Amino acid sequence: MTVPNLKNYSTLSVSIEENIAHIQLCRPQELNSMNLAFWAEIPEAVRYIDEHALARVIVISSQGKHFSAGMDLSVFENMGASFKGEPARRAEKFRRHVMQLQDTFNALEEARMPVLAAIQGGAIGGAVDMISACDSRYCTQDAFFCIKETEIGMTADVGTLQRLPHIMPHGLVRELAYTGRNMMSKEAQSCGFVNHVYPDQETMLLEVFKLAKTIAAHSPMAVAGCKEMINYTRDNTVANSLNYMATWQSGMFQMPDVMEAMSAGQQKREAAFENLQPKSDKL
Amino acid sequence: MTVPNLKNYSTLSVSIEENIAHIQLCRPQELNSMNLAFWAEIPEAVRYIDEHALARVIVISSQGKHFSAGMDLSVFENMGASFKGEPARRAEKFRRHVMQLQDTFNALEEARMPVLAAIQGGAIGGAVDMISACDSRYCTQDAFFCIKETEIGMTADVGTLQRLPHIMPHGLVRELAYTGRNMMSKEAQSCGFVNHVYPDQETMLLEVFKLAKTIAAHSPMAVAGCKEMINYTRDNTVANSLNYMATWQSGMFQMPDVMEAMSAGQQKREAAFENLQPKSDKL
Amino acid sequence: MTVPNLKNYSTLSVSIEENIAHIQLCRPQELNSMNLAFWAEIPEAVRYIDEHALARVIVISSQGKHFSAGMDLSVFENMGASFKGEPARRAEKFRRHVMQLQDTFNALEEARMPVLAAIQGGAIGGAVDMISACDSRYCTQDAFFCIKETEIGMTADVGTLQRLPHIMPHGLVRELAYTGRNMMSKEAQSCGFVNHVYPDQETMLLEVFKLAKTIAAHSPMAVAGCKEMINYTRDNTVANSLNYMATWQSGMFQMPDVMEAMSAGQQKREAAFENLQPKSDKL
Amino acid sequence: MTVPNLKNYSTLSVSIEENIAHIQLCRPQELNSMNLAFWAEIPEAVRYIDEHALARVIVISSQGKHFSAGMDLSVFENMGASFKGEPARRAEKFRRHVMQLQDTFNALEEARMPVLAAIQGGAIGGAVDMISACDSRYCTQDAFFCIKETEIGMTADVGTLQRLPHIMPHGLVRELAYTGRNMMSKEAQSCGFVNHVYPDQETMLLEVFKLAKTIAAHSPMAVAGCKEMINYTRDNTVANSLNYMATWQSGMFQMPDVMEAMSAGQQKREAAFENLQPKSDKL
Amino acid sequence: MTVPNLKNYSTLSVSIEENIAHIQLCRPQELNSMNLAFWAEIPEAVRYIDEHALARVIVISSQGKHFSAGMDLSVFENMGASFKGEPARRAEKFRRHVMQLQDTFNALEEARMPVLAAIQGGAIGGAVDMISACDSRYCTQDAFFCIKETEIGMTADVGTLQRLPHIMPHGLVRELAYTGRNMMSKEAQSCGFVNHVYPDQETMLLEVFKLAKTIAAHSPMAVAGCKEMINYTRDNTVANSLNYMATWQSGMFQMPDVMEAMSAGQQKREAAFENLQPKSDKL
Amino acid sequence: MTVPNLKNYSTLSVSIEENIAHIQLCRPQELNSMNLAFWAEIPEAVRYIDEHALARVIVISSQGKHFSAGMDLSVFENMGASFKGEPARRAEKFRRHVMQLQDTFNALEEARMPVLAAIQGGAIGGAVDMISACDSRYCTQDAFFCIKETEIGMTADVGTLQRLPHIMPHGLVRELAYTGRNMMSKEAQSCGFVNHVYPDQETMLLEVFKLAKTIAAHSPMAVAGCKEMINYTRDNTVANSLNYMATWQSGMFQMPDVMEAMSAGQQKREAAFENLQPKSDKL
Repeated sequence: MTVPNLKNYSTLSVSIEENIAHIQLCRPQELNSMNLAFWAEIPEAVRYIDEHALARVIVISSQGKHFSAGMDLSVFENMGASFKGEPARRAEKFRRHVMQLQDTFNALEEARMPVLAAIQGGAIGGAVDMISACDSRYCTQDAFFCIKETEIGMTADVGTLQRLPHIMPHGLVRELAYTGRNMMSKEAQSCGFVNHVYPDQETMLLEVFKLAKTIAAHSPMAVAGCKEMINYTRDNTVANSLNYMATWQSGMFQMPDVMEAMSAGQQKREAAFENLQPKSDKL
Repeated sequence: MTVPNLKNYSTLSVSIEENIAHIQLCRPQELNSMNLAFWAEIPEAVRYIDEHALARVIVISSQGKHFSAGMDLSVFENMGASFKGEPARRAEKFRRHVMQLQDTFNALEEARMPVLAAIQGGAIGGAVDMISACDSRYCTQDAFFCIKETEIGMTADVGTLQRLPHIMPHGLVRELAYTGRNMMSKEAQSCGFVNHVYPDQETMLLEVFKLAKTIAAHSPMAVAGCKEMINYTRDNTVANSLNYMATWQSGMFQMPDVMEAMSAGQQKREAAFENLQPKSDKL
Repeated sequence: MTVPNLKNYSTLSVSIEENIAHIQLCRPQELNSMNLAFWAEIPEAVRYIDEHALARVIVISSQGKHFSAGMDLSVFENMGASFKGEPARRAEKFRRHVMQLQDTFNALEEARMPVLAAIQGGAIGGAVDMISACDSRYCTQDAFFCIKETEIGMTADVGTLQRLPHIMPHGLVRELAYTGRNMMSKEAQSCGFVNHVYPDQETMLLEVFKLAKTIAAHSPMAVAGCKEMINYTRDNTVANSLNYMATWQSGMFQMPDVMEAMSAGQQKREAAFENLQPKSDKL
Repeated sequence: MTVPNLKNYSTLSVSIEENIAHIQLCRPQELNSMNLAFWAEIPEAVRYIDEHALARVIVISSQGKHFSAGMDLSVFENMGASFKGEPARRAEKFRRHVMQLQDTFNALEEARMPVLAAIQGGAIGGAVDMISACDSRYCTQDAFFCIKETEIGMTADVGTLQRLPHIMPHGLVRELAYTGRNMMSKEAQSCGFVNHVYPDQETMLLEVFKLAKTIAAHSPMAVAGCKEMINYTRDNTVANSLNYMATWQSGMFQMPDVMEAMSAGQQKREAAFENLQPKSDKL
Repeated sequence: MTVPNLKNYSTLSVSIEENIAHIQLCRPQELNSMNLAFWAEIPEAVRYIDEHALARVIVISSQGKHFSAGMDLSVFENMGASFKGEPARRAEKFRRHVMQLQDTFNALEEARMPVLAAIQGGAIGGAVDMISACDSRYCTQDAFFCIKETEIGMTADVGTLQRLPHIMPHGLVRELAYTGRNMMSKEAQSCGFVNHVYPDQETMLLEVFKLAKTIAAHSPMAVAGCKEMINYTRDNTVANSLNYMATWQSGMFQMPDVMEAMSAGQQKREAAFENLQPKSDKL
Repeated sequence: MTVPNLKNYSTLSVSIEENIAHIQLCRPQELNSMNLAFWAEIPEAVRYIDEHALARVIVISSQGKHFSAGMDLSVFENMGASFKGEPARRAEKFRRHVMQLQDTFNALEEARMPVLAAIQGGAIGGAVDMISACDSRYCTQDAFFCIKETEIGMTADVGTLQRLPHIMPHGLVRELAYTGRNMMSKEAQSCGFVNHVYPDQETMLLEVFKLAKTIAAHSPMAVAGCKEMINYTRDNTVANSLNYMATWQSGMFQMPDVMEAMSAGQQKREAAFENLQPKSDKL
């Protein structure tokens, strides 16, 4: 089922089935490079799904040989062209431009449901920023990862340097950032950056969707609570995070989901949980 | 030597020899599930040992095929039964209940001496919360770990989500939390969650007690300083932690232990250090 | 080329070629133990290089069979001798002494260019404090690492306990700190502490200098930005770090380096970037 | 001049003259109570002005005898009506509702230009949340302030308890919050909550606009920098804030505004600074 | 009504009427100096009241001419006598002693209900530590406050230096701490340390009990929420605190208290709210 | 007594008597403007006094009609002249220049002894940055304070915006920063920025030296502990600060100063405390 009320995107193909949303980068000829449309569409798609609670888990994958070549040259050219005017105001504008790009991938982290990235071939530059903001990463044997920005004379600024140190050893992050070298799939797994390596994309998608199915079968409130807590604890002390957890539970722990899970268990059937509340249902 | 003034516990068997306390979960028939008595006894035992400086290191292990099945059903039933009354006050009470459970395992972290967990078979739900609060983890080949709570419709709330991200890669923590799948011993070691995997429980206990002996042979002040600093640095900036370290040393670095260590070294004998001060010796 | 205006050091041999500074510990007969001169010279050398922007990357290695035996006994004796006087003032003085030692290795972290450590044989006590403050670590097969301080009756206080938990799993840090046991090269790699293990020192230096060359070929502004950001994010929330990144770019992202990188790419030649500004060029 | 492209608001009257935006609460008959339209319009108006850089300072005032009676009853009724469904999902939804209300006033804090509040008569409940998020507060002699929420059985949740402790002594904040009593203008000034008390609204507006004119005559980049820094320092250490300041200046300190200010000073004329960049001018 | 199950205290006289607990320091002949019994009794009394939800507000006052002369000499003598043994262990023990004293006054901050201090005459040394941990302070004209510790050769270590900077201007805190001079009631009010000055103790108690009555008439859940939030925001960023507020409300905002407050308002009667849940009602 | 080993300064006159150092800005003809020499000399003088423990308190005052006109024009001209070269490197250099200026006043905060500022006439621009970093401020009736930077087209960047919000109400800080208006002595006192206003400079110096004498008569360890704690608590949570306090006391609380204070009290004589340890006495 393609969700009818998802608008048509030029850089993404989005489908939702059985509570799993599948967002595919769909410009394989251009190596799924991140053009202006992409930067607008990816957060819009993710936020739309979250807003309307259309899925309980999101899988991001990509068509073609490579996951994504990162920033499209046209964006750099645009940036170059608008790099003018009184220098203080230009600096302030550039700061906001970077923040706007960063916000794009914050959407992945802020979505209430987990976002899984399934990567084949190259994930270059901006693509590393993007998958670093996903919950978990999976890849094919031929996958490789590259903090390309250093090589083109700039510091990666869309999240890679802020998120990688939380998901792989610092010593390796630094080497990758300073040298701009490729990290191959095997190293990516052994350092904990990806959870699993699969022989090819087909197998990978099959397996990642199995994980997604397991997640989607659980109470979406329970899963959303996990995501909120893991996000929170990354940026707070353990004591503060424990207090937050307990305070969260004062509202979010309720009997219906636990009862449903338990009777489903006893009756050896799939539990049937309500979806999350659409956010669109505002005050 | 069983310590005479340790009271008798119904869920734990506690013995102390040569400065090593051994706390065993002793309800193997019930899979060492965590019943109300357990939640009261484990912090009481640990705090008693710390309070009276009865040991320099604590080993927690378990009897039977499985380490622990996690929360006992009776606790859930209790919780369900007391889940009533005016909803705001019930929420506030539930928040305190969660905090009370959390505090149980904080005791492991706050004890001045290291706490080592030796795990065989399943460590499920609350058991993961518990061992995440230990200093280091060791397991047998047949061990497996499971964030069970998601499967039963709730968010794990006793420390797992707050502590795991500090002791294994985030991408894996998220997968384990969202799917509730088992993590086997091999994966647990390669991701850094356990330090070592042993073929069976007997070998494991032998080796863990060797480590414990090494620790117990060191100055307990030096070891307690290490624990305090590693705990502290997890929740503070490096600059703040360095300052704390130096300030700590202004009182805690003194000559006697260094001298004893050095002459013992020269004389090729075991160093003989004073124990920690009992906390019971209050103002 | 030996840099002429680097003063002569008694514990270090420093040379700079093609934007790579090589600092060698040069007291192999004394196992490169850290005597009073060393504690003064290592920060002085690093700061001098940074101050004058003499290099784009620093490699620290060591002569002889072992990287370094850690604190020289003479320093302890000095410390012991000056451990007297009114106890409060002595405590305050000792606190400052520890801070002074810590500051020594902060210099490695604060240098604008990456610092790579290449370790053979033993890295003991203070040597672990030092390499923990480097950006990345590389070692030979025969290398081993030891938090010796615990064994001599004191808590390691020059940075090991503050920095290790950011660069290897906590459970392992704790075991190493409490037991004072050796960690061999293989374990050091699998836990992420070192990036790579080489068969011997010659191979290691060859390969580490290849990495250094790659780094030195990049825009030193881009690389310095990476280092600043990875340092910053370790001690700040992701949200705060993203904001810092964007604010940094408002000044530090400029066209010349990007243009040079791009035309060099198109012209298939090495890019030629300006060095960092000497800090000595003060207001 | 009424700005033509500001849409018409039902609860606000907005005009912009000489770089000063004046937002007036314009439902005096309903005591400027905060109905659903208000909660949508106030952030929209402020963000629109900021987005398009339509002003260099914003003054918020109110028509009629009282500044604002706070939350409109209709909002509570709405809230009550939507307070249903599965309790965990309802709780999650309520949490988001509160965040949505909070975000409304975050807009005042996040606007790049200062926001001055000019208050007459009563500022009750939600009105205190609102003015606490303004940069500075001014009032008439007959003004009074009341944390009304306590009296109606709930904890104020839209920012009052988070921001007041930064702008008046804690001991007084607590008394006001616990008792729900009125604070009169004189006390509000002596405790630092308002900067100045004026005999009547006419005088107040005259004087506040004088201040606004002074602000609008300055470089809007210099003023925006001040606001960003004061906001930042509230939530960060002094050391971190100093570093942020210096990093900000690397891009935002440029010669043109300083030169213009200096030659205007020498030529005894008003300096003519460029406006801030519209945010609408996106990448 | 004297609460029967409050045990008899030697340093305190405790009574509870109409949801207001009154704790009086009752050793006027000894100037209510803080002896060993006092340090044990004050937290015990406060925690007992909180534990059992015996009151909705606590007033602390004192009998005799002076509020309290601070630390009793006997405690110092005790401390001196126990200041011996191996110096590192003695230092560790002294650290815990200070923490134990600090914890005494943390009890005031952690109680769910507000604690008001009503001070006459001198509040010296430890008394300043104590009232700094109260929610609000009120005093008589003849009251004065003194950070005595400096004068007796030590740094105040029971909370004064940690809490005063949050409740009066830093420049004044520093002067008081460095000089140890008396701050008179008038200055205490103008700097925001006390909320109000009354001509004599009788009037003060009358007025403070009026405030207490107002507080006790409100929903204790609403008031406890205020206290939790103001405590929390002192130690967290505004963004984090707003999120905490919203999360708290997801459980603690419920209709019954709001409905009761509203119908009581309409019916012009006192609202009748349930008390807080006793904490003793544990899991 | 002029201290012989203090080098001669061109912008400062420094004398030390009875443990009180007096640093006077001594270029009254140039309104004590802050030229390049000043920025080097003020931290050097303060650090020299601290380094060698030459005093127990420092008073900063100024000669002539005005305290200081702030940044000397020559510094701006220098800055303008060096504002060139590749823009990224220039930005990085400018960032360091700002940090270098900031560090100048950090010296006041970091000195172990209190620093009191005694201000007459105008304290403009950089002078506000400077006195904000002092422990306490005192002024004459004719004193006024001005955040001049806004008026000259730039954001104040040497500490004013980071420190003022900790020492006066935020609403007022913002008004002063945005408008650049003068704050007169009376307002400065009522908002808590200065501790006391005196009719003229002579009286002020007399009274400030009385305070200084009181401070100098106390144990310098006790006073230094107060300063460290108040500095620390500004940037840390109360819980963290209490822990720091207790840890500090483990080393710094010792009997000799307390005993001396007590016997001096009993014998009605001045207590005679040892000075702080010179820092120069390094490891």
